[in-house]
Amino acid sequence: MLVKIAPQHAESSAALILANARCLGLEARAMSDGVGGIAIGVSGDLPDGALDVPGVTSVIRKHKPYLLATREIRDTPTLIQVGDVTIGGPEPVIMAGPCSVETEEELIEIARMAKAAGATMLRGGAFKPRTSPYSFQGHGEEGLRRLAHAREITGLPIITEVMEPDMVEMVAHYSDMLQIGTRNMANFPLLKKVGQAGKPVMLKRGFASTIEEWLMSAEYILSHGNPDVVLCERGIRSFETATRFTLDLNAVPLLRELTHLPVIVDPSHGTGKRSLVESMALAGLAAGADGLMLEVHPEPERAMSDAAQTITLDVLERIVRRGRALVELLNGQPLLDPTVTSLITA
Amino acid sequence: MLVKIAPQHAESSAALILANARCLGLEARAMSDGVGGIAIGVSGDLPDGALDVPGVTSVIRKHKPYLLATREIRDTPTLIQVGDVTIGGPEPVIMAGPCSVETEEELIEIARMAKAAGATMLRGGAFKPRTSPYSFQGHGEEGLRRLAHAREITGLPIITEVMEPDMVEMVAHYSDMLQIGTRNMANFPLLKKVGQAGKPVMLKRGFASTIEEWLMSAEYILSHGNPDVVLCERGIRSFETATRFTLDLNAVPLLRELTHLPVIVDPSHGTGKRSLVESMALAGLAAGADGLMLEVHPEPERAMSDAAQTITLDVLERIVRRGRALVELLNGQPLLDPTVTSLITA
Amino acid sequence: MLVKIAPQHAESSAALILANARCLGLEARAMSDGVGGIAIGVSGDLPDGALDVPGVTSVIRKHKPYLLATREIRDTPTLIQVGDVTIGGPEPVIMAGPCSVETEEELIEIARMAKAAGATMLRGGAFKPRTSPYSFQGHGEEGLRRLAHAREITGLPIITEVMEPDMVEMVAHYSDMLQIGTRNMANFPLLKKVGQAGKPVMLKRGFASTIEEWLMSAEYILSHGNPDVVLCERGIRSFETATRFTLDLNAVPLLRELTHLPVIVDPSHGTGKRSLVESMALAGLAAGADGLMLEVHPEPERAMSDAAQTITLDVLERIVRRGRALVELLNGQPLLDPTVTSLITA
Amino acid sequence: MLVKIAPQHAESSAALILANARCLGLEARAMSDGVGGIAIGVSGDLPDGALDVPGVTSVIRKHKPYLLATREIRDTPTLIQVGDVTIGGPEPVIMAGPCSVETEEELIEIARMAKAAGATMLRGGAFKPRTSPYSFQGHGEEGLRRLAHAREITGLPIITEVMEPDMVEMVAHYSDMLQIGTRNMANFPLLKKVGQAGKPVMLKRGFASTIEEWLMSAEYILSHGNPDVVLCERGIRSFETATRFTLDLNAVPLLRELTHLPVIVDPSHGTGKRSLVESMALAGLAAGADGLMLEVHPEPERAMSDAAQTITLDVLERIVRRGRALVELLNGQPLLDPTVTSLITA
Repeated sequence: MLVKIAPQHAESSAALILANARCLGLEARAMSDGVGGIAIGVSGDLPDGALDVPGVTSVIRKHKPYLLATREIRDTPTLIQVGDVTIGGPEPVIMAGPCSVETEEELIEIARMAKAAGATMLRGGAFKPRTSPYSFQGHGEEGLRRLAHAREITGLPIITEVMEPDMVEMVAHYSDMLQIGTRNMANFPLLKKVGQAGKPVMLKRGFASTIEEWLMSAEYILSHGNPDVVLCERGIRSFETATRFTLDLNAVPLLRELTHLPVIVDPSHGTGKRSLVESMALAGLAAGADGLMLEVHPEPERAMSDAAQTITLDVLERIVRRGRALVELLNGQPLLDPTVTSLITA
Repeated sequence: MLVKIAPQHAESSAALILANARCLGLEARAMSDGVGGIAIGVSGDLPDGALDVPGVTSVIRKHKPYLLATREIRDTPTLIQVGDVTIGGPEPVIMAGPCSVETEEELIEIARMAKAAGATMLRGGAFKPRTSPYSFQGHGEEGLRRLAHAREITGLPIITEVMEPDMVEMVAHYSDMLQIGTRNMANFPLLKKVGQAGKPVMLKRGFASTIEEWLMSAEYILSHGNPDVVLCERGIRSFETATRFTLDLNAVPLLRELTHLPVIVDPSHGTGKRSLVESMALAGLAAGADGLMLEVHPEPERAMSDAAQTITLDVLERIVRRGRALVELLNGQPLLDPTVTSLITA
Repeated sequence: MLVKIAPQHAESSAALILANARCLGLEARAMSDGVGGIAIGVSGDLPDGALDVPGVTSVIRKHKPYLLATREIRDTPTLIQVGDVTIGGPEPVIMAGPCSVETEEELIEIARMAKAAGATMLRGGAFKPRTSPYSFQGHGEEGLRRLAHAREITGLPIITEVMEPDMVEMVAHYSDMLQIGTRNMANFPLLKKVGQAGKPVMLKRGFASTIEEWLMSAEYILSHGNPDVVLCERGIRSFETATRFTLDLNAVPLLRELTHLPVIVDPSHGTGKRSLVESMALAGLAAGADGLMLEVHPEPERAMSDAAQTITLDVLERIVRRGRALVELLNGQPLLDPTVTSLITA
Repeated sequence: MLVKIAPQHAESSAALILANARCLGLEARAMSDGVGGIAIGVSGDLPDGALDVPGVTSVIRKHKPYLLATREIRDTPTLIQVGDVTIGGPEPVIMAGPCSVETEEELIEIARMAKAAGATMLRGGAFKPRTSPYSFQGHGEEGLRRLAHAREITGLPIITEVMEPDMVEMVAHYSDMLQIGTRNMANFPLLKKVGQAGKPVMLKRGFASTIEEWLMSAEYILSHGNPDVVLCERGIRSFETATRFTLDLNAVPLLRELTHLPVIVDPSHGTGKRSLVESMALAGLAAGADGLMLEVHPEPERAMSDAAQTITLDVLERIVRRGRALVELLNGQPLLDPTVTSLITA
C-alpha cells in the first residue's frame, strides 16, 4: 500500500502511520515526495482506521512490488546532488575516466583532460571485479587516495565501485558516489550496507536481470534509508556475440514510466567496442537518459583494463558537445505542432 | 576473394573474371561499386593468372563471409530509390501505416494523415504471419489492391510483406518495396525469389539471428541479382519480458561498419509498447539509422492487429519533426572542435 | 471451446457441431480422440443451443490457445505410424543418418550400418537450409531418389526436410515422413501445405521459439487436416557459446503435460558437439522422450555438412543399446514403493 | 603453464617451482593430482631453467584460462568427502530438504523423512537471498543451529548457503558444506573467503554465466586454498518463460571434459515447476551428474518459500530409487558390443 501525506501534516502523520504499520507487523518506509510532503510505502494493507490521520491525500492499494522506487509514490523526478553536480535535471551528467585507476600522475592527467572535454564527474575503479583470480584486482585503498587527489585538483566529484559490505565505509570515506557493479546488483548484504552509507549510489543493472528485479534492488537501498539512487543501464547478455553485451536502451523510457529515479547509460560496457560508443551514447541521450558513464583514456591501448571499449579524449569531447546539443534540441522542441495537428485529426 | 575494377575497364574485365571463376568451379557475383566501377565477390580464391585483366584496382583475400554485402567491397553507401524516396541519403525515410491493411476507406484516411504527419512511405500488411491459425491472416490480394489505391491517391510508395515464394510475383506487381518479415529472415527459397523480383527489398532481422546471419541472408538476395536491400532492426528476443522484444540499437552503428546497405529501425515491433516508440525512434536516428518503420492508426485500439504498439498520428508527427531536427543537428555538428582539442591532447 | 463426443454418436454429432460453428462464423476442427470418440476444437464459444446434440461428454471453455494439440482435448497419447515404426509407443524411435545425403553408395552403406546399430528410421537432407548462399545446398530430387533407394534396400522408413510449399508434394512422394526444420517452424504457408500432405510430419522447434509458439505451429498442421505431428526438441539459442545450441530437455516433460503429440530429441544439433551427443541422448530418453534423431557417419570428418556434431556408428550402437535398457528400466520401475512409503508420510 | 610432478619428488620440487614463479612475479598454485603427485598452475610461462627440477613429468604451455580447475592438470576425478558422504564416486549424492529452514520440529521431521526416502545430505537455507527487501530473509544463525540439530538426530551432513564474506566463518562453524548461490557466483570477495574456509563448497552456476566464467569462479576458490569444490547446474535464464529457468544439462557432459571437479544438478530451481523435477532429475543423472539437489517438503504448499518447485517425500523416494537404478545400469553397460561392432565397421 502506498500513502501520500500533504506537506502541512507530513511529519506527524507519517510518524503515526509508521507506528500503526509496525504495530500490525508490516514493513513501512517513509520518503520525501520531492514537494514537501511525505510518501509512505507499506508492505501490506493497513486497515482504514490506521489511515485516519490528517493530511492523507491519496492511498494506492494496487501497485508495483517496489514501494519507494515506484513513480506511483512520487510525482516529481528525484534529483541527486553529488558535489556541484545535479543528476536528474536538464543537464546530462558525464561521468568519465579510466576503467581502472592508473598511476597517480596518469590519473590526474586523464582527469584534467576529461574535464576539458566536458566531463562533470570522474570515474575509476580501485577495486576491480575480475573474472580471473590471476588478473589485476585494482589498487585498493591507494587507488581511492589517488581518486581523491584527482578530485582536489580538478574539482570533479568522483565515483568508484565498492564490492563488499566491509569496504563500504572506507570507499564512502573517499568517494562522492558509490557504484554497485553489474555482478553485485543482487548482492543483498552489500545493498543493505550502501543503503546506510550516507552517500549517493549508482546501481548498475545486472547483465541478466529484468527491469523489475533491478528496481527491487534499488528498493533494498532506498528501504535501508538512502534516497539517492541512480540507475545505470550497462548492457544485458543476449545471444548476440558481435557486441560484448547488448545495451538495452528500451530500459531508459521504460524506467521513466516506472520510477522517479534518474537513469544513466554506460555505452562502454554496453557495447564493449570503442567504435560503437559515440553512436550509442547519443542514442542513450535521445532515449531520455540523464547522463552517461564513459571509459576514456588518452591512449586506450595502454589502459590497464577494458582497452577495447575505451575511447580517446577527442571522442569524449565530441560526445559531450553533440550530446548536449541534442538534449537541448529535444527539450526545446514543442510537443505539439498546431499547424499540422489539424490535418491529422481523425 | 573480393576484386575491385576501375570504371574504364569495368564491364569487360568483370566479364573475364566471372568467366575465369566459373571455369574453376567457383561462385562469383558482380555488383556496381557506386562510383562507376565494378566489385566482384568470389566464393574462393582465384589464382593470380585469373586476375590478370586490365583495371583491377584491389584484391582482398581475407574478408567477411558475405561478399556483396560487406563494406569492404564498396566504399560508398548504397542508395536505394523507391519512387521519389531515396533510402540511405541524408533525409530519413519514414515508413508508416497500420499493422494490417484495414478497409479501403480507413486505409486511405490513414495514408492521407500519415503523409500530413510527415511519412514518406506507406506500410500495411496484406499477408500476415500469425502465431495462431485461427487469427485473422490478412486481406490477401484485395489488401494489395487497397494499398495500390492509397498510393495513387497520396503518392506515397508502398511497402508490404511477402511470405512465400509463390506470392513474390503478385506482391511485386502491386508494391514498390517488398518486406521480408522476421520469421522469414532465414527462409532461403523466399530470399532467392525476392532476389529475382526486380523490386527493392526490406529484410527484417530474425528476432534470434546474429548480425552475421542477417548479412548472410542479405547476401542471398544480393547474390540472386537484387542490389536493393535495406536492413531493418526490429528487436531481438532476450530474457527481458517487460518489453515484447529488445530493440537492439547496437546493430545500427555496427552495421555501418560492416555493410554499405542502408539500415532502418522499427521501434513498434522492437518494443511492443506504444509509450516507448517515440523515445526509441529518436534513439534509433541518433544511433545513425537511415529511417524508421512505424505502426500508426488514428484509433490504435481499433486496429486489426498489434494495437498495443501502435501510435497515433500526432505522435507520428512529433517523431518526424523532432527526428528530422535531430538528424540535421547531428549531421551539422563538426566532428572536431579545434578550440578544445588542444586541451585534450596527451 | 473444446467439445468431446462419445463414440456411439461421434460422426453425426460432430458434423452438427461443425455446421453450427460455421454458421456462427467460428473456426472449428474435429479430430479422433484415440478411443473411438471425436474431439472438436472451436476458436470461440458456441452457445448452449449449438451444443445440444447427443453424445457430448464434456465441454471445456477455458483452455490453451492451441485447440487440437492440447492434451485437454485428448486423454490418450497420439501414436504415429511410419511404415513399420510406431512413434509414441513404448519403444523409442531411432532416426539416424548423415546430415546431408551423400553419394548413393555411401548413403546405402550408412543406412545398412545404422540399421545394424539399431536405427529404426533413416534421416538425410536432400534440401539443405544453409546460412551462406555459396554453401552446398543439397542434392535436391536426386537426393530424394537415393533415400528411397536406401529404404528399398534396408527397409528403414525415411525422413527428410522440406523447405518450401512448392516442394511438399515432391518430397512427400519419396519420403515416409516430412521434416520441418528449425528455421521454418513459423513458415506458416509451409505448415499449411504439410497439413494437407497426407504424410506424418516432424516439426522441429524454432531455436528461439517458446513452447507455446511451437504448439501453435503444430496446430497449423493439425488444423489443416494432418493429425500425425511429432515434435522434435533440437536446442535453443541462449547466451552460452560453449555449445552450438542449448538442448532444452525441460521441454520434454513439459510437453508431456501440454500435448498428446509424441516428442523426440535431437542431441546432434542441440549440442553441436560430438562428444556430448551420447550423454544428452540418454538424458533425453530419461526425461521421457519418445525417440532420438542423430547425425551419424562412418567417418564424420568426411561428412558433407555438420561434421563436428556427427557421431560414428559404434557410438550409435551404444546409444541405442544403453538407451533401450534405460527406457525399459524406467518403464519397469514401480511408481510407489510401499515399504518406504509408510516412513515418509507426514 | 601447467606443470605435473611425480610422487617421489612432489613436495620438494613443487616448492622449488613455486619459489621460482614467485621470484619471476608470477602467480603459482599447487594442488594434489589425486595419485600422489603434485600439479602446479602458473599464470604465465616459466623459462626452461625454472623447470629444471627432479620429477617434472609434463609441462603444458597451451591450456584453459583456469589452471587448477582444468582436467588437463589432473587425470583423476576429484572426490570430495562430506562426513560419510563421498561426492564424485559411483554413488550419486542426494541433497534434499526444504528451501528455507522451517521451525525446528518441522525441519527435523523433514530430515528424518528425507533420510528414509534416500537422501544422503540435508539442505536448507538459513540466509535467503530474496528479490524483495520485504520478503522473509531466513532465520539466520538460529536456522543454522536447527540444521546442526537435525544433523545430530539424523546423521545427515548439512549444506547451507552463505551470502557474505563476514558470515563465512559462522556458517562454516555449523555446516558441513558451504553453498554459494547463483547470484553470488561472481561475488569474488565471497569466493576468496570460502577459499580459506576449510569446508567443502558447492558453487552454483550464475544463471547468466557461461561455463568458462563458472570455472573461473571455481578457480577463485581453488586458488585461495580450498580444493573441495562441487559445481551445481541450476538453470540458466533464456527467452523461454514456461519454465522459471532453463536447466542446462548440456553443462554436465561438457564439464566432465573440462574439469576434474564433481558436478551435481538442481532440477528444483532449474525448472521452477514441481511436475518437471522427477524427469529432469533422472535426465541429469543420465547425463552423468554426480548427484542431485532437491527441494522437498511434506506439504509443499506450506513451505516458507519456493513452494511451486518443491516436491513431496514420495516423489523424492521415487527419484532416488529410479535414479540409483539408472546410474547402476549405465555404469554396468559395456561400452562396446563385439557382436555388433563387426557389422558397423566401415
